[in-house]
Amino acid sequence: MTDRKRLAVSEAVVRRLPAYYRHLRELEMQGEHRTSSRELSERMGLTASQIRQDLNCFGGFGQQGYGYHVDELKKRIGEILGLTRAYQTIIIGAGNIGRAVTNYPPFRREGFEICALFDESPALIGVSVQGLAVRPSDELEAWIAAHKVDIAVLAVPADSARIMFARLLHSGVRAVWNFTPVDLSPSPDVVVQNVHLSDSLYTLTFRMREHGFGGVLGGQ
Amino acid sequence: MTDRKRLAVSEAVVRRLPAYYRHLRELEMQGEHRTSSRELSERMGLTASQIRQDLNCFGGFGQQGYGYHVDELKKRIGEILGLTRAYQTIIIGAGNIGRAVTNYPPFRREGFEICALFDESPALIGVSVQGLAVRPSDELEAWIAAHKVDIAVLAVPADSARIMFARLLHSGVRAVWNFTPVDLSPSPDVVVQNVHLSDSLYTLTFRMREHGFGGVLGGQ
Repeated sequence: MTDRKRLAVSEAVVRRLPAYYRHLRELEMQGEHRTSSRELSERMGLTASQIRQDLNCFGGFGQQGYGYHVDELKKRIGEILGLTRAYQTIIIGAGNIGRAVTNYPPFRREGFEICALFDESPALIGVSVQGLAVRPSDELEAWIAAHKVDIAVLAVPADSARIMFARLLHSGVRAVWNFTPVDLSPSPDVVVQNVHLSDSLYTLTFRMREHGFGGVLGGQ
Repeated sequence: MTDRKRLAVSEAVVRRLPAYYRHLRELEMQGEHRTSSRELSERMGLTASQIRQDLNCFGGFGQQGYGYHVDELKKRIGEILGLTRAYQTIIIGAGNIGRAVTNYPPFRREGFEICALFDESPALIGVSVQGLAVRPSDELEAWIAAHKVDIAVLAVPADSARIMFARLLHSGVRAVWNFTPVDLSPSPDVVVQNVHLSDSLYTLTFRMREHGFGGVLGGQ
């Protein structure tokens, strides 16, 4: 079976893969060597049969009467997610979100190496974030041309999002992790992951309303 | 039809609702009064028939040959998402993520009023963020008891996540927006939305690998 074939999993499974990886990493950190579809099911809020079906997509990891080896399963899912290599990452926008990503220890642990931050605000240029001096956005193209960049994290204000995205595409960056509220479209040459924090917040308020918390259902 | 019944929509539709709201708001800001399932389909990367089917769940908004009124549809989806009221919001953890949420103008615009920030670091206590002095975490319970709090944003380090969540539950907070990497479970008394930024990043690296960007598929 080729890797391409193995990768041909449904979108629903793709959506769950990062959560599998996360829970397996937690189990590993807790010193667990072995898990079961039942344990994963309780942790993840999925049915055990859904979990067995998902994991079957990547080959037969489970052993009857034993369950799953945590390290093997985590390794395999990490490979599928592309987490077995390092990613040279730059941050565009050195405000709170750009700095939060730079400072977040789990990202470094998983191979995301922040190698430069850019901002256009004179107040931020030269400021040190995790030992990196913030560079002026003017230098972006020259810097990308001179270095290997795998991922650009876009954390600029909404009104700069499209123009900065266009500059990144023109510079040959192939992957953009987008924290701006503007939906940016992937193309054959670039993959984009839009974070949209507000979507998550609106899902929370939907759930509050569904539970009748903090207001009358259907009120005014 | 009761509101409760109208709310009984599938999880897949719930997942798409915030994106509908976001795109309708963008259309509104661009001065558009009218849209169609075709236009929404191009913007959102869904099929037009999927969109008609989703929107039919909330009553017949579309008119044959006209399409949808942007303002009416946005208003109705905003109601379903619970965005027609204000939410008193507190921030636990005044680091980069806590400050990013506090400073993010769209949240205030949509009715999320940040009324207090808490941190346990002496270096942060008393620091002003958007005109609010960061309070010591010790004061959390007393503050919640004396004020109306709808949503707590949890932005503390991973190792404080569970204990702080337990304190929030004990204080009677009914909704937690969780930015820590620890999965927190909802209960009948509290709704939880886990952000898990790493899930989004891992989806990006999955897509990079799927496209063969920045490495050989299935390499080492």
